[in-house]
Amino acid sequence: MKAWVKVRRGPGGEIRTVPEPEPGDDEVKVAVRASSVCGTDLHIWVWNEWAEGRIKRIPLVLGHELSGEVVKVGHGVKSLKVGDHVSAETHIADGTCYTCRRGKMHICENVQVLGVDHDGVFAEYAVLPEVNAWRNDPRLDPSLASIQEPLGNAVHSLLPEDSVEDLAGKDLLVTGCGPIGLLAIAVARQIGARTIFATEVNKVRFDLAKQMGADRVFNPVEEGPKLAKTILAETDGNGVDVAVEMSGHPASLRLAFDALTPGGRVSLLGLYDHDVTLNVNDALVLKAARVHGIFGRRMFETWYQVKNLLANPGLREKMAQIITHRVPLAELPRAMELIQSTQAAKVSLEARW
Amino acid sequence: MKAWVKVRRGPGGEIRTVPEPEPGDDEVKVAVRASSVCGTDLHIWVWNEWAEGRIKRIPLVLGHELSGEVVKVGHGVKSLKVGDHVSAETHIADGTCYTCRRGKMHICENVQVLGVDHDGVFAEYAVLPEVNAWRNDPRLDPSLASIQEPLGNAVHSLLPEDSVEDLAGKDLLVTGCGPIGLLAIAVARQIGARTIFATEVNKVRFDLAKQMGADRVFNPVEEGPKLAKTILAETDGNGVDVAVEMSGHPASLRLAFDALTPGGRVSLLGLYDHDVTLNVNDALVLKAARVHGIFGRRMFETWYQVKNLLANPGLREKMAQIITHRVPLAELPRAMELIQSTQAAKVSLEARW
Amino acid sequence: MKAWVKVRRGPGGEIRTVPEPEPGDDEVKVAVRASSVCGTDLHIWVWNEWAEGRIKRIPLVLGHELSGEVVKVGHGVKSLKVGDHVSAETHIADGTCYTCRRGKMHICENVQVLGVDHDGVFAEYAVLPEVNAWRNDPRLDPSLASIQEPLGNAVHSLLPEDSVEDLAGKDLLVTGCGPIGLLAIAVARQIGARTIFATEVNKVRFDLAKQMGADRVFNPVEEGPKLAKTILAETDGNGVDVAVEMSGHPASLRLAFDALTPGGRVSLLGLYDHDVTLNVNDALVLKAARVHGIFGRRMFETWYQVKNLLANPGLREKMAQIITHRVPLAELPRAMELIQSTQAAKVSLEARW
Amino acid sequence: MKAWVKVRRGPGGEIRTVPEPEPGDDEVKVAVRASSVCGTDLHIWVWNEWAEGRIKRIPLVLGHELSGEVVKVGHGVKSLKVGDHVSAETHIADGTCYTCRRGKMHICENVQVLGVDHDGVFAEYAVLPEVNAWRNDPRLDPSLASIQEPLGNAVHSLLPEDSVEDLAGKDLLVTGCGPIGLLAIAVARQIGARTIFATEVNKVRFDLAKQMGADRVFNPVEEGPKLAKTILAETDGNGVDVAVEMSGHPASLRLAFDALTPGGRVSLLGLYDHDVTLNVNDALVLKAARVHGIFGRRMFETWYQVKNLLANPGLREKMAQIITHRVPLAELPRAMELIQSTQAAKVSLEARW
Repeated sequence: MKAWVKVRRGPGGEIRTVPEPEPGDDEVKVAVRASSVCGTDLHIWVWNEWAEGRIKRIPLVLGHELSGEVVKVGHGVKSLKVGDHVSAETHIADGTCYTCRRGKMHICENVQVLGVDHDGVFAEYAVLPEVNAWRNDPRLDPSLASIQEPLGNAVHSLLPEDSVEDLAGKDLLVTGCGPIGLLAIAVARQIGARTIFATEVNKVRFDLAKQMGADRVFNPVEEGPKLAKTILAETDGNGVDVAVEMSGHPASLRLAFDALTPGGRVSLLGLYDHDVTLNVNDALVLKAARVHGIFGRRMFETWYQVKNLLANPGLREKMAQIITHRVPLAELPRAMELIQSTQAAKVSLEARW
Repeated sequence: MKAWVKVRRGPGGEIRTVPEPEPGDDEVKVAVRASSVCGTDLHIWVWNEWAEGRIKRIPLVLGHELSGEVVKVGHGVKSLKVGDHVSAETHIADGTCYTCRRGKMHICENVQVLGVDHDGVFAEYAVLPEVNAWRNDPRLDPSLASIQEPLGNAVHSLLPEDSVEDLAGKDLLVTGCGPIGLLAIAVARQIGARTIFATEVNKVRFDLAKQMGADRVFNPVEEGPKLAKTILAETDGNGVDVAVEMSGHPASLRLAFDALTPGGRVSLLGLYDHDVTLNVNDALVLKAARVHGIFGRRMFETWYQVKNLLANPGLREKMAQIITHRVPLAELPRAMELIQSTQAAKVSLEARW
Repeated sequence: MKAWVKVRRGPGGEIRTVPEPEPGDDEVKVAVRASSVCGTDLHIWVWNEWAEGRIKRIPLVLGHELSGEVVKVGHGVKSLKVGDHVSAETHIADGTCYTCRRGKMHICENVQVLGVDHDGVFAEYAVLPEVNAWRNDPRLDPSLASIQEPLGNAVHSLLPEDSVEDLAGKDLLVTGCGPIGLLAIAVARQIGARTIFATEVNKVRFDLAKQMGADRVFNPVEEGPKLAKTILAETDGNGVDVAVEMSGHPASLRLAFDALTPGGRVSLLGLYDHDVTLNVNDALVLKAARVHGIFGRRMFETWYQVKNLLANPGLREKMAQIITHRVPLAELPRAMELIQSTQAAKVSLEARW
Repeated sequence: MKAWVKVRRGPGGEIRTVPEPEPGDDEVKVAVRASSVCGTDLHIWVWNEWAEGRIKRIPLVLGHELSGEVVKVGHGVKSLKVGDHVSAETHIADGTCYTCRRGKMHICENVQVLGVDHDGVFAEYAVLPEVNAWRNDPRLDPSLASIQEPLGNAVHSLLPEDSVEDLAGKDLLVTGCGPIGLLAIAVARQIGARTIFATEVNKVRFDLAKQMGADRVFNPVEEGPKLAKTILAETDGNGVDVAVEMSGHPASLRLAFDALTPGGRVSLLGLYDHDVTLNVNDALVLKAARVHGIFGRRMFETWYQVKNLLANPGLREKMAQIITHRVPLAELPRAMELIQSTQAAKVSLEARW
């Protein structure tokens, strides 16, 4: 089969013909229908410092966001059958560690990630553990189905566990309107947030943030340090109840805390290029902030929420708006360029070679 | 001033001229702009068994749902001033008991209720503790402002505390579509529920349930015992995640449990005429159900949510639809008849004498 | 091998020689070291109404509480090896239903119970799914190891989920001091409860309740309806913060609610012989009670807590006190008689035939 | 009356004779029986950078930890009377802001602190709002009663809200064994923690940490960067479930995250002299850590827990051990020296002038 393979420790990748993977006992083989590009894929493509330190497996089939059709199942597979439409949960958990056995498989102590530690999905076929193959409604557009995983990140950032407050009538700040930030805005609008503030420097994404339902979108560079005060002023002086930090910029992290109401909560999903310097006293201690680190999605509470929120056609339409470009898998380098160009929000990859 | 007074232990009430109440140190005096009739008011009006056992204070000015304007403040009042528009939180808490001091004033061990234990609001003026006067946006329609209290019941039933799951993408059953049930449907729609099931026998309310956003409304008498199976079938066999019981009918209570997913939660707001007989094993123990008794609203987490959800004009429009009749306060007996007639959902009382 | 088998739909059982069970791919075979008798086993032994309705599989090997040694593993087993000491989690979950995939395997929609739906453990060998075999410290006394499952019930009743209050400095009522009630007292003492009230009619268990650490033990029959008032008086008039109902008696269920502080929580583990009649208004709605049905134990949050609480030698000593009788497995009928005799608390079964 | 007064913006303070304060309508006047010295008092005494920036009110009566007897009540006071024994909750809240009205008075948006913003308690008499005077059992030793406030910090750090996990069978790390860290160890032992790790450089406090019940106490300077690995190794490779950072040292903050299990939680109470540089990716995001900033104590959930945990004589004995020195109020400068000397844990101040 054809697949995009990282063949050496450095930038780029190549289309190679590799053997089709075969499912083990508890695995399924999926014919890829659609994929999409995540920031992680870009890091590995350009081979930045993080990729150099993180990637062990070379050659590696790239990619992890997926929708496709089951074409073969291992003999121990019970819950899926050939012909099922599925998406991939890309956190492969051992299922037996202390963390997994307490219902937190997404942060398994030995988590392995598709397209990072395991061969990925920018290929004609991919193999997944049964448990990682999420069955879709066959009527769901494959491009949208592939984006359920980042939608899951967005939902998980807004609602990190059962025992936090809902967003009903709450004010929200989203810092960073990449695809996950945009999806967070759309979801927050659907689940009853009052005022949604967002920050973004990129013009395409700035405009999309408004389309997703943000009430106020700011360019944080233009606004500078007065932005926290602006947000406080627009929330009766209280600050936002919830902030989700999705930019990976230290200044946005600080803004998230500065604009937060005492006792409010912050979800951190963005990754930072370097260590961050923070006034921990003011940001966290004296403000009694509550912070949730966000890695992956709850397996599978979040997936059920994603599936069910998508029953709303309005959310499906917004997701479609976020897909600014649709590119054949054969043209992956162009997809990578688009993402770096500031012209794109989400780039969908169609299964054409 | 004019006021509707229960002058003897029995049905009905009379318009009397009584002295205007004057605020104590920590109280405010409110000129009534609008009021509305609650089921409790009807119980006291018709003087049913519950009223006979519950009401101690005669003569008693009736009514508790209110919006109005502050006309005088006690000398210790800090947060309100003459001219403020307010609604009434009708649970008057002592503020000093074990329950109050742990943030649960709405279920104060010595709670007193406006129009039940204290003189009420079907009058030209009413006096409230400062803490019970919730300041409104002056642009909010007084009729809607008066109905914030039952809207608070609805919100509190759906989201009884911080540490329960949200409703995002969850399936919901509302048994009983009186005003609070109807409001619960409208709110659940606004905060991201997936499928909303409702039950109601009254035709006017049945139709309103659909207008509020219920996906499926059933007449529980016509459906009979097969209804739980129908709901299970329409939720992929899982049952609803959340049920709110607002009818006060034992059969509806049983339905709420029968149609519930294992580990699901039920809020009980309806009051029952008699003791209820229940298969506790199946309803609660083996299903690992979680049940929340609902009395009042969180003071004042729920009020903030109510205020902020009302920022959405869609909810204000739905609330207006629920007000099927607007009657002058002078014609309270007609309002009571309307509620008993099956023609009405919510009856608003205008401050005309 | 030898095994106690229910050979016909009626009282009692017989020792039979049956083929040794062999593990499937994801199963382990365990040589039974110790077992113990649960109330459920007794119901099946005497073949009461519940057993007649519930048991489908005849012949059936009886029993479910177990500790033993792994003697063979299926080829897909990864986390256990021959020689490991294990106890059984007796809820066998499908792992794929809506409930399982949201971290609630213990209430799987298709749950099957060892010794009820599957062949059990009153035998020389038993087969368990890998996931249901909980690895023990080999130094743990096999009799205590076998009782971890009901200890898990006790812990789960006290701490039903992450998002409820702890018991630190809280007042507790335990109604019914069978083995699980006794263990609940011991655990509550270990995790910082202030005053522990308990009720029990059986003298042996009454005395054990005190040994476990209850501050006040009452005979509910002798105390009668004034008991709730006594408990209120001894909690500064507030009532207990938490009640766990483990008796299966309707009067105790009512007591649990009557003695509860407003907004308090109740865990229901006891099963009732018949439907229960309850004043739902006072017990639940107006008291804003929170109720958790308790079935099984969290898989495996509770097991970790059980394991770690047992690191405290004081708890192990208390568990040993609860074992009033140790009987060879060959003498199961005597064990059943002991339990019915009011002389016993927990009866341990030693692997002697 | 006599009082220790900061008379100018600089180090130290003076005993002055000042007018006795008189209670307002909702206030009580308390005769000081015992007080104690907190780190905050020391900062103000030595007049460090923080004090220079924070203190606005000069002259200022110093001190905030207190127990005493009510000698006069304002005319609006309902819940206290002359002769009551009380301690002070030192966070004076406005009661009317968004944060207060949602049950979080301890982080009131306009919080004022006794001995910082208001005249304090190192005096013969002090005046408190009624709501801030916590009534004690008169049999409680006044020195211990005065230390309930930092005990509340300890409890609040371990159990920051209702909707977090309990500590039953959990592993804990306490970084920094000042009085609050020591109290946290004692409380964690009482509420069922399994293994308690602690770090401390001061020899007196190191030894007290063991007396409080820590299983393993480390000198973090001697251990250096390998300490996180040691703790991981001693927790089956999982890391601790909960860490409470009470040292104010950036290295300890990093240790708290490095030694944490994925998805674990960290409470931050220590204040840092400068901004902190942190690998936010590893510490928070990828580990899915949950962080709670801790400022004050829950008003008054924590106070009830404190009161009820103190029903255990073992905790009272441990508290008494922490009081390494008892000094007359007249000798405050000596108390300040003791705290700076590394010889002391908690210094109690007796009401002798």
